[in-house]
Amino acid sequence: MPVRRSRDEYVRLNMARFHRAECEQRDAADPLAPIRDRFVIPAHVIYLDGNSLGPMPVGAAAAMTRVTEQEWGQRLIRSWNESGWIDAPLRLGRALAAAVGARADEVIVADSTSINLFQLLVAALQLRPDRSTIVAADDDFPSDRYLVDSAAALLQRRVERIDPADAIARISRDTAVVVFSHVHYRSGLMLDMAAITRAAHAQGALALWDLSHSAGAANLDLDGADVDFAVGCTYKYLNGGPGAPAFSFVHERFHTSMATPLTGWLGHDDPFAFEATYRPAPGVRRLQVGTPHILSMAALEVALEAVADVDWGRVRAKAMALTQLFIDLVESRLPHAGFVLASPADPHRRGAHVSFDHRHGFEIIKALIARGVIGDFRVPNTCRFGFSPLITRYVDVWDAVDHLVCVIENEEWRDPAHSVRSFVT
Amino acid sequence: MPVRRSRDEYVRLNMARFHRAECEQRDAADPLAPIRDRFVIPAHVIYLDGNSLGPMPVGAAAAMTRVTEQEWGQRLIRSWNESGWIDAPLRLGRALAAAVGARADEVIVADSTSINLFQLLVAALQLRPDRSTIVAADDDFPSDRYLVDSAAALLQRRVERIDPADAIARISRDTAVVVFSHVHYRSGLMLDMAAITRAAHAQGALALWDLSHSAGAANLDLDGADVDFAVGCTYKYLNGGPGAPAFSFVHERFHTSMATPLTGWLGHDDPFAFEATYRPAPGVRRLQVGTPHILSMAALEVALEAVADVDWGRVRAKAMALTQLFIDLVESRLPHAGFVLASPADPHRRGAHVSFDHRHGFEIIKALIARGVIGDFRVPNTCRFGFSPLITRYVDVWDAVDHLVCVIENEEWRDPAHSVRSFVT
Repeated sequence: MPVRRSRDEYVRLNMARFHRAECEQRDAADPLAPIRDRFVIPAHVIYLDGNSLGPMPVGAAAAMTRVTEQEWGQRLIRSWNESGWIDAPLRLGRALAAAVGARADEVIVADSTSINLFQLLVAALQLRPDRSTIVAADDDFPSDRYLVDSAAALLQRRVERIDPADAIARISRDTAVVVFSHVHYRSGLMLDMAAITRAAHAQGALALWDLSHSAGAANLDLDGADVDFAVGCTYKYLNGGPGAPAFSFVHERFHTSMATPLTGWLGHDDPFAFEATYRPAPGVRRLQVGTPHILSMAALEVALEAVADVDWGRVRAKAMALTQLFIDLVESRLPHAGFVLASPADPHRRGAHVSFDHRHGFEIIKALIARGVIGDFRVPNTCRFGFSPLITRYVDVWDAVDHLVCVIENEEWRDPAHSVRSFVT
Repeated sequence: MPVRRSRDEYVRLNMARFHRAECEQRDAADPLAPIRDRFVIPAHVIYLDGNSLGPMPVGAAAAMTRVTEQEWGQRLIRSWNESGWIDAPLRLGRALAAAVGARADEVIVADSTSINLFQLLVAALQLRPDRSTIVAADDDFPSDRYLVDSAAALLQRRVERIDPADAIARISRDTAVVVFSHVHYRSGLMLDMAAITRAAHAQGALALWDLSHSAGAANLDLDGADVDFAVGCTYKYLNGGPGAPAFSFVHERFHTSMATPLTGWLGHDDPFAFEATYRPAPGVRRLQVGTPHILSMAALEVALEAVADVDWGRVRAKAMALTQLFIDLVESRLPHAGFVLASPADPHRRGAHVSFDHRHGFEIIKALIARGVIGDFRVPNTCRFGFSPLITRYVDVWDAVDHLVCVIENEEWRDPAHSVRSFVT
């Protein structure tokens, strides 16, 4: 249902052409621009969902062919030694350490974010046996909420759910552990990791951070912030592939004292001694549980190699610039279309994604996807757009908003096909 | 250091030629023989380690190419719906159900055997809150021992470690759960699952079985044995690939009452509602924790398709025949070489692998591997040989023993290269 354009709108469109050229200039001057070529971006797609599933690195398919046909198919069991499978969790942890500001021996790749969160939360609680409270965000990502509740019930602790804005004031001498997402999955709110960690330490508490929505899109400095424990996802901004194993970080000061609940044989100091009693491996190796998911790790390893030389300070600066450009364009070009910014307006308090609430948000996202602009939707009415600085160009931001303007002006979201709810959006 | 052959030995070798022809006849008559062609067995390899890492199914590499290049690379996030990723854990569970004698909705594929064991053991203990004891085997596989200890400590229960031969007598009204491996990882001892489960139920206890060393090589009937809970590995006899996700079985009578400790968002009844409080999904879907490892699951799915039409009764019968043939050949051809059978002599009490202890076991296994006969070694002196009925021919058994005779007669194991200890053998 196209609408006739007003004179004002034509003026705006002229401005639009001017601005796109500006975007092209920013891309031409962007030192991160060449990184995009290390990933496969399908033709006719503007991908604003790298915060949910990062694109495939060039070389991932070849790595899968190698690990199946040669390593598994031909070398079989011998690949645990000969193809380096047994070292994969620590090797990938070392490869990931720089992206989170950790020492090489403080990170390991294993299992899922949820499982690692449980593992480290129970370990942290056992390091503070005389304190009764876990301080956590009242609206954190579901796994974080549910697993905090579950660990608290198992260890008979209390969960204090707070607005993270009050975090520093709410930490007390009774706080065992504070658990927060660094960047909120919905709003993109980025917390001050160093300040909250400092406040926790001042009260004798420990800090556990979930980096799922910042690792790979921020300039993280876990050691600089003196963080105790962290977990995070590798299939979002780190582009490790669907369901890629997650990572855990443990500050080296806990490398001997930390006791974990998931005492799998590969976390044992000498797994192949098959001893009767668990004796933890040194450091983060004890965070291994069962046999590593080698096929999934092979793709992740390619993704980590693709960002080995990245300057994370530049990544963070670009995340702020891209999200700001998107907000500015939406608010200037669609000022009366019903979009309400659901992310912090201050780029320093915002991660690399932007959420706008809209009463027809679901249909709008579907209409954008039909145009090849892939964002996602979160109930009840949030349109979420991710701007992975490694793969997103300034012109992508411009073009995405151009498509959004068309979706709104042409009322394309009214197409009944766009109101069909699917399980995952 | 070859030795001269005695007249007796030449007589034995003549017998050998006779027997190999017999093996060829048994292969020709074996209705399972065509299954082997669905897997890649490298040239010049006799693979007797399918109990540790099964061979690659034909089509696995092509599936990995499809899931990376098309599903991930081109469809990106949309593949959660369009490529069926979101349903993979339940779909693979349904595909696996027949191999363990379960109903299609009683099995799910997720995470690792160790994590699933913890998940189900804690769930089982919470179903028996007034009982203080877990009955478990005194020499079970390390992960099973360590995680039983860990769950017991978290839930303040006691572990009673027993000789499984005494299982039925040791289960009491204070037993909450019995946990056993169906087939022992070292000896191959196969326990009577139905009888022990019956004994547990007679005392009001629950039975949790680890099927890692039997699933894919036995005729399992979990529902027939009225088993409560089970876990198992998919990368051994089920050929799912290195570190393939594991499976969990929950009898349908617990599908509403079971409460799990690892309350990840994907185990929630409505994950995409992002609710504040955990509300478990119906049935085994609540055993999901984090995002499924899609790349690893893609290979496993091919492996499960490769055995969809297998008659598991024939698989069990062939496992007994292959292991018996191996024992008979080793004992008749190498009667004074120092091999001591470490597996049950009765094939009905034995899984699909055979262990012989030998004081030079490590060097012997290394010398066999140098000849292309791949078995494995377990400290301190166990040579372990797996006879996956899906891929092992009777002539393979014959030829493997022929190589073993050469290793012993020529004293090839004395080669200093064979005494170098590697991390995984």
